[in-house]
Amino acid sequence: MKKIVIIGGSAAGPKTAAKAKRMNPENIIELYTDENIISYSACGLPYFIEGTVKSINQLIIRTPEDFEKQGIKVFLNHKAQKILPEKKCVIINDKEVSYDELVICTGAKPNIPNIKNIDMNGVYFLRRVSDGIKIKEAMQNAKRAIIVGGGYIGIELLEAFVHNGLSVSIVESRSRLMGIFDSEFSDLIKNFILERDGQWVDMHFNQEIVEFVADEDGKFAKLITKSGLELEADFCVVASGVRPNVELAYDAGVKIGSKGGIVTDVAMKTNIEHIWAAGDCTEVKCMITKRPMYLSLGTIANKEGRVAAININTDPKIGERFEGVLGSAITKYFNYTIALTGMTQENAAKLGDKYNIQSISATVIKKDKAGYMPDSENITIKLVANKKTGKLLGAQGVGTGDVNKRINTVTAALQSGLTIDEFLHLDLAYAPPYSSTIDILLTAAYRLKSQMEDS
Amino acid sequence: MKKIVIIGGSAAGPKTAAKAKRMNPENIIELYTDENIISYSACGLPYFIEGTVKSINQLIIRTPEDFEKQGIKVFLNHKAQKILPEKKCVIINDKEVSYDELVICTGAKPNIPNIKNIDMNGVYFLRRVSDGIKIKEAMQNAKRAIIVGGGYIGIELLEAFVHNGLSVSIVESRSRLMGIFDSEFSDLIKNFILERDGQWVDMHFNQEIVEFVADEDGKFAKLITKSGLELEADFCVVASGVRPNVELAYDAGVKIGSKGGIVTDVAMKTNIEHIWAAGDCTEVKCMITKRPMYLSLGTIANKEGRVAAININTDPKIGERFEGVLGSAITKYFNYTIALTGMTQENAAKLGDKYNIQSISATVIKKDKAGYMPDSENITIKLVANKKTGKLLGAQGVGTGDVNKRINTVTAALQSGLTIDEFLHLDLAYAPPYSSTIDILLTAAYRLKSQMEDS
Repeated sequence: MKKIVIIGGSAAGPKTAAKAKRMNPENIIELYTDENIISYSACGLPYFIEGTVKSINQLIIRTPEDFEKQGIKVFLNHKAQKILPEKKCVIINDKEVSYDELVICTGAKPNIPNIKNIDMNGVYFLRRVSDGIKIKEAMQNAKRAIIVGGGYIGIELLEAFVHNGLSVSIVESRSRLMGIFDSEFSDLIKNFILERDGQWVDMHFNQEIVEFVADEDGKFAKLITKSGLELEADFCVVASGVRPNVELAYDAGVKIGSKGGIVTDVAMKTNIEHIWAAGDCTEVKCMITKRPMYLSLGTIANKEGRVAAININTDPKIGERFEGVLGSAITKYFNYTIALTGMTQENAAKLGDKYNIQSISATVIKKDKAGYMPDSENITIKLVANKKTGKLLGAQGVGTGDVNKRINTVTAALQSGLTIDEFLHLDLAYAPPYSSTIDILLTAAYRLKSQMEDS
Repeated sequence: MKKIVIIGGSAAGPKTAAKAKRMNPENIIELYTDENIISYSACGLPYFIEGTVKSINQLIIRTPEDFEKQGIKVFLNHKAQKILPEKKCVIINDKEVSYDELVICTGAKPNIPNIKNIDMNGVYFLRRVSDGIKIKEAMQNAKRAIIVGGGYIGIELLEAFVHNGLSVSIVESRSRLMGIFDSEFSDLIKNFILERDGQWVDMHFNQEIVEFVADEDGKFAKLITKSGLELEADFCVVASGVRPNVELAYDAGVKIGSKGGIVTDVAMKTNIEHIWAAGDCTEVKCMITKRPMYLSLGTIANKEGRVAAININTDPKIGERFEGVLGSAITKYFNYTIALTGMTQENAAKLGDKYNIQSISATVIKKDKAGYMPDSENITIKLVANKKTGKLLGAQGVGTGDVNKRINTVTAALQSGLTIDEFLHLDLAYAPPYSSTIDILLTAAYRLKSQMEDS
């Protein structure tokens, strides 16, 4: 029996709590959060704003009552202020809470760009449920919105706003949308959006916002960029990514890594005895290169929470490991899927010298099903491989057809360390409603193989 | 430069021809078929009958003229009668055709059950384009149909006939539908079909048909089974599977294997010098157990044709290999996907002693997307693993949600020899429209892991 204190209530915290209790019902488990809600799907917030998800309650996975029933004590609106590792306690709402094992699941917080009047009324960030509710309200009373940032959340909010009849400007500091993709994919995505909704959507790249300007009520009215661009709107959402929320951990001497997240071992232990971490406050390792990465994703939070709970309750040496990530990610703009796994070619070029990579790639446009099936759709898939080893490095895909399947298939191949030679023997399931006879993945692999032989 | 003679024009033959010509444009390539059409997607025939594919021409991948343009000579309605290996020639339409290399792509032919009056008017088999056209005509003039056989083709024809307003009886000699699945999946599939269309569809199992009975015009009117069941219909399709068409090869001394198909090495060479084989006339090896299997699939035909063409034009020792199959397969009944890869648990039980398998399995029913997404659907996935090695052995899936993605992901993992421990670290791409936070595959893998630890 152990007293396990968990700080944070979004994804990793509740997962750790539930798993640790199931593993040993005698454990005393206390979960503290400074929000008034726990265990929710933050990734679902854009779909709540859009209206696809009707009620915010649908995003709640388990209520505090569900946890209480399981024997887990939940403390809402409780802010953890300081960890005292040598006393094995945390100061929460000015009181000392002792622990046998502490799990830090403090999540992430939005990057806040250096813009004048960033905390103005009518300027929103999307992170918590309360943010989602506020943005939805703003949207329902608006005709024009600005989204700062053209990444995943930016695209998802764009869909939500367009679906609700708003005109939207995207303002991006970089030269393109979805900067984690190779640039030709950024272009494909931009072109799809503008072809579909160019009437309502405009995009501005290489823009450094210097100031938000209020109307006479003190509410957001327009923004001004360094280059002199002025854009008016009824409200503005800043979606400039997130960073790990690690102040509490850092102050306690917990090791922070080069990506700004808490560093753990594969058991999810930090450098301090009896302190563990899981979820968006941690940084992770790339399974291919072993380099540190930072990703904010519910899947990782769940996996890490599960691993932490197992190792808290068993000897970490024989317990479970969190092996890291490939950086797989997916989103959509209406019926257009945008997904990647592993390295892009731009990544591979940057990492080339250090990791002995000479990248080659093949990009194929092909129907996702047999071409004669009336619902077949073109998709574009790019495979990246290392010419020096023959191994797959990553895949990117976009299109109105089934990109999702292809990326996940590559994920499994990538994680297994398959070479292109091995990959092109994949016995993928085939029928006309699901694939062409030679699947686009194999077409791309054949092209990569030719490139490897041509030298 | 070589003179390459290819016998057979459906999938493997045209693939071999096109690839061999591209590899060396000086090759003289002659393709002979006893049909009046080449290079078509036989797998698309049920969708042509259904009307989803409007014109039979859509199923034609390349016309004879396309091949002629590439410099390949195509001979329609030419029947290969005898191979004379020692003379390196084939007798076709009573004339000797010499070859440097011969590729046998004679495909498969329907299993013809031992039923009285099987060749009656109004009884059809589905294999060739001409069959598809005849069945479509029969359907358009009919109110009731009988399908003999509840496998892939049986299910696809059932969809076609139901879609066109017919009442349909399925008559199956075995005790269940889709006998290559584990029996609980056969039940799920049967239940889905009967819940959706029980008004128009009936099924009869364990039925041995003894006789087809004609009406006064000599056309099919009813069938009678051994147990005394009599079923009337306007026409009947016998879909009792196919077997390799190997008489030509066998007569020439080409080795035939235990599954009835031509035996080749990984280069697609037969036991006779200068004679190769590809497609549905060959048997293949299971990549997991290396045991021989027989499968009739366009994907395999294409891969084998490609490999044969490469090895004919290069030294097979450094050429390309066809590594075998996992038995991946997929089909649908309207919006209900039915798919598998690798071994079922019943397979594993049969093969257990010989291949050192002690199978365990986990079956999970879960939403294919985040549960709060309005278009999320339940799917059922069963993972099978070998307790002795920890390795995955196979997966089966059914449901109205995205089964396709999961089966292909498992295919890649299976082919890579992943253990359950490795599999549950898969970094699958996650967003609410595409997956639940913990994907059904990982839920199933966690359950398998528990089972492995519980002993």
